[in-house]
Amino acid sequence: MEKRQKSEPCVIGLDFGSDSVRALLVNARSGTELASGVAEYPRWKEGRYCQPAQSQFRHHPLDYLESMTQAIQAAVAQVTPDIAQSVVGIGVDSTGSTPAPIDADGQILALRPEFADNPNAMFILWKDHTSVPMAERINQLAHSSDFPDYTRYVGGIYSSEWFWAKAAWVSEQDAAVARHAYSWVELCDWVPAVLSGNQHPDVLRRGMCAAGHKVMWHESWGGLPSEAFLTAVSPTLAGLRERMYHDVYTADQVAGYLTEAWAEQLGLEAGIAIAVGEFDCHMGAVGAGAGAHDLVKVIGTSTCDILMVEPSQVADKAIAGICGQVLGSALPDMTALEAGQSAFGDIYAWYKRLLLWPVQQYLSEHPDVSFDLTDFENALIPQLTQAAAALDEGGNQALAVDWHNGRRTPDANQRLKGAIAELNLGSTAVDLFAGLVEATAHGAKAIVDCFVNQGVNVDRLVAIGGISQKSPYVMQTCANVIGREIVVAESEQCCALGAAIFAAVAAGVYPTAQEAQKQMASPISRTYVPESAIPGVRESRYAMYRTLGQSLEQLSVERSNDTESSQRGDA
Amino acid sequence: MEKRQKSEPCVIGLDFGSDSVRALLVNARSGTELASGVAEYPRWKEGRYCQPAQSQFRHHPLDYLESMTQAIQAAVAQVTPDIAQSVVGIGVDSTGSTPAPIDADGQILALRPEFADNPNAMFILWKDHTSVPMAERINQLAHSSDFPDYTRYVGGIYSSEWFWAKAAWVSEQDAAVARHAYSWVELCDWVPAVLSGNQHPDVLRRGMCAAGHKVMWHESWGGLPSEAFLTAVSPTLAGLRERMYHDVYTADQVAGYLTEAWAEQLGLEAGIAIAVGEFDCHMGAVGAGAGAHDLVKVIGTSTCDILMVEPSQVADKAIAGICGQVLGSALPDMTALEAGQSAFGDIYAWYKRLLLWPVQQYLSEHPDVSFDLTDFENALIPQLTQAAAALDEGGNQALAVDWHNGRRTPDANQRLKGAIAELNLGSTAVDLFAGLVEATAHGAKAIVDCFVNQGVNVDRLVAIGGISQKSPYVMQTCANVIGREIVVAESEQCCALGAAIFAAVAAGVYPTAQEAQKQMASPISRTYVPESAIPGVRESRYAMYRTLGQSLEQLSVERSNDTESSQRGDA
Repeated sequence: MEKRQKSEPCVIGLDFGSDSVRALLVNARSGTELASGVAEYPRWKEGRYCQPAQSQFRHHPLDYLESMTQAIQAAVAQVTPDIAQSVVGIGVDSTGSTPAPIDADGQILALRPEFADNPNAMFILWKDHTSVPMAERINQLAHSSDFPDYTRYVGGIYSSEWFWAKAAWVSEQDAAVARHAYSWVELCDWVPAVLSGNQHPDVLRRGMCAAGHKVMWHESWGGLPSEAFLTAVSPTLAGLRERMYHDVYTADQVAGYLTEAWAEQLGLEAGIAIAVGEFDCHMGAVGAGAGAHDLVKVIGTSTCDILMVEPSQVADKAIAGICGQVLGSALPDMTALEAGQSAFGDIYAWYKRLLLWPVQQYLSEHPDVSFDLTDFENALIPQLTQAAAALDEGGNQALAVDWHNGRRTPDANQRLKGAIAELNLGSTAVDLFAGLVEATAHGAKAIVDCFVNQGVNVDRLVAIGGISQKSPYVMQTCANVIGREIVVAESEQCCALGAAIFAAVAAGVYPTAQEAQKQMASPISRTYVPESAIPGVRESRYAMYRTLGQSLEQLSVERSNDTESSQRGDA
Repeated sequence: MEKRQKSEPCVIGLDFGSDSVRALLVNARSGTELASGVAEYPRWKEGRYCQPAQSQFRHHPLDYLESMTQAIQAAVAQVTPDIAQSVVGIGVDSTGSTPAPIDADGQILALRPEFADNPNAMFILWKDHTSVPMAERINQLAHSSDFPDYTRYVGGIYSSEWFWAKAAWVSEQDAAVARHAYSWVELCDWVPAVLSGNQHPDVLRRGMCAAGHKVMWHESWGGLPSEAFLTAVSPTLAGLRERMYHDVYTADQVAGYLTEAWAEQLGLEAGIAIAVGEFDCHMGAVGAGAGAHDLVKVIGTSTCDILMVEPSQVADKAIAGICGQVLGSALPDMTALEAGQSAFGDIYAWYKRLLLWPVQQYLSEHPDVSFDLTDFENALIPQLTQAAAALDEGGNQALAVDWHNGRRTPDANQRLKGAIAELNLGSTAVDLFAGLVEATAHGAKAIVDCFVNQGVNVDRLVAIGGISQKSPYVMQTCANVIGREIVVAESEQCCALGAAIFAAVAAGVYPTAQEAQKQMASPISRTYVPESAIPGVRESRYAMYRTLGQSLEQLSVERSNDTESSQRGDA
């Protein structure tokens, strides 16, 4: 990590995840990762301000500030003082949509003493689902004849995970917060503003990424949705539009310059450039070196998929069934199309929990039995993987559908559930695991097909994220099922690396993000080539996946009808 | 067991299962079970003559003879000599279709020295599936315009588990056996013939049950299928029809009388009546006290369901989608409709094997770890049952379809496979188990509906067999799902008891089987009453089971098409 590159400019990429923040210190000329620090959010770790049973997940702003400080200090401590002094910029990515209310000075309300312990005055984490009814109201209005379809460029369905649903819901639930919320801010916009002292709403620079993908900002309707629309969503939003923003910025632009106070605390030089922020997967695509027609899959518990195309290729055409399409949300000159799978690694983790139940239950009833549950648990996925990789094609593999957490893309539908079929009395635990892995690969293929079938070419598949590094079996299955090569980026921190790339552009080391990518983006470490298959088998397995999926769609309709009729008291 | 009933007549019911034979010694006046002996088949236990991977399952006739002798001797040893001397008859039931080739003297070929170790000269156990291609040929011919539809009264589809498929297949595979096979005999017909010395083909009495359900014997086409048909099935069957039989007998009739030699060996009186045999589930229905419109479910690894109706109710109408309808195959005056579920307890056993895999694998890789796998294994189903019984209705239960071993009724289809749907990331091992139990109950409901929808009333549901005794949770779920009371017979040996009932009639203790039932049939020990449910929930769950099932039917068609096209070399 400590390869010295004296006098060459360095940059820091900050990556705010759900549980921790990472600071990656990178040589801006070579892209070499010199140091890295990670810090968990202390209040979050204690479970404060959250109610998982109600899907309420909040982050206190101090968690971000304290952890960011620690992470940067830790990275800086790993390098020599001359390298620390050669840091010329900071870039930021974060989860999203993760908004918080701010006062007229740009202060997060929870940082004011009277709101210090009020979860409604904090950041509302992307996976907080408290605002489901509000999202439904937004969709009804946007799809009515009274307003333009503001969901047109966010996949046609507004999610409860997104900005306006959260702002409106919290405002209706908490009058004090509504009264003091001068405006609202996304986490990826707030961090650059804090570091540069540009928190005041008049100067706070908003990024294109959050605005376009989550706040329904679009040039064609003059920026944010109309005052009439927002007031119809909730009277508590009245007047807010005027106090929000009109202009948005891409991440190659400067949000401001590091203040003296932060410089001293972090051990960096004051006045270095702070780039405009973006969401993590968009930065990840840039860090992985992606350009036009590269589909970058960030594969972890779920996936986030970014496909960049030349703006002319989509123009004002809306690609159906995806999560969003925004000019400049990843690379400034490209339209980034966002898609994703609601569950990927989470499905393997689910199956692991299922298989662990008998032993956990047995040990709880037999406290005298000594057994190393942790070692057993850690061995399980490797064992399944090894056994599944040894199965013959055309064996007794189960056929599954990967909608255990609903379906994000194509065609978002949170009511859907997963299934495992093609079971016989000889189906083993390994046959089911292989079927689940194939199902996640089929889910990935469905996204590729969704783009290609709408005339958006996919030239290259790039995988980043934990599973792409950890599981050759899963990656090989994806290549086989999709029938395309998949390349894996070498860097385990492509998102932070993308933030570093934008820091380098904001600092003037490179004229454009593409130029910076050429030097700094992660190399490819591994290529998965589709293995030859029994002719027709993969096509027919995918056709069966779709057949089973259609039946699951029908089941979800039947289930919903039943729930409604039983609530009405029908027999 | 040894309650003495001096001077009252006693009878013995012999029940030949897949692994062992049971002899039940019963007071013929009161029905009291006085003694019982069980003996496993020794060669079978060693796995001889079987090739499970090819679904070849054969029983050596000596296994039957030796084990029967042991079982009867063991039962007789439990009672006083005066009770042994008061045994007036023996009844026999067995698995089926389990046929074997015999020579012109009625000897099973495997009992001749030159065939002693030839599996093709032995009994072909019901679950032997070697003759699948032959069953297909039989169906093609029976459904062609050249012949009457001989499958009309066996559900419309002839199975590879049945008599002609096996006889023709073995004859084509083994020329020596074909040349020496003067005729063929079902196990349940052979045992009474052996005990009475009436093995010679001229005097060997064939039961209505095997003949009607498995040998396509029907009065309307003059008994067995025509010589032309059988020769078309296989030239090796030419001339066989003439040497088989025309007359068939019900189980209240006498097959013969116990020979001196057997009497001496078994410790019984020579000359006592031997009743004509039947298949086990038919005898079980009689032993459970069933009459017209009682649906008796023999619930074990799979189920066999017998519904008796007055002959006038079906006359020459064929009930669609069941396994067979034969006048006199259970009670002599009733038409017995046979149905069944291909897997019931086997599905729970499958799930248990699946959940055991991780621990078995871990222990195999960690031979130093000490863990009582047997105790763990034995605890698993009770743990799942207890946890599943505590689940809330309308919780997160999975929705499954119980076709892991294909579907027997309604509408036999061995290509179908099972499935588990309605899965989310919160679905637990217990949610899946509850779903699998519900699926077997849904399978039971589908059979009830199949009868009722064709105008055949079901007045009472009677359960016998291991699961009906062992699992109140499963039985309560069945009652809930079917929406009817289910009564469970007290006797754990209803099949052997049914055989004993027919022994009593053959011996003249009672004029009819119904009269014998009144005194001897098992009482009811428990009644499961449907529990009240959230209105509409059960109907909608069953509708969802059917929706998912339709998709599985489509999957099986797609799978078959793919297999065929890949065999043809299509891409």
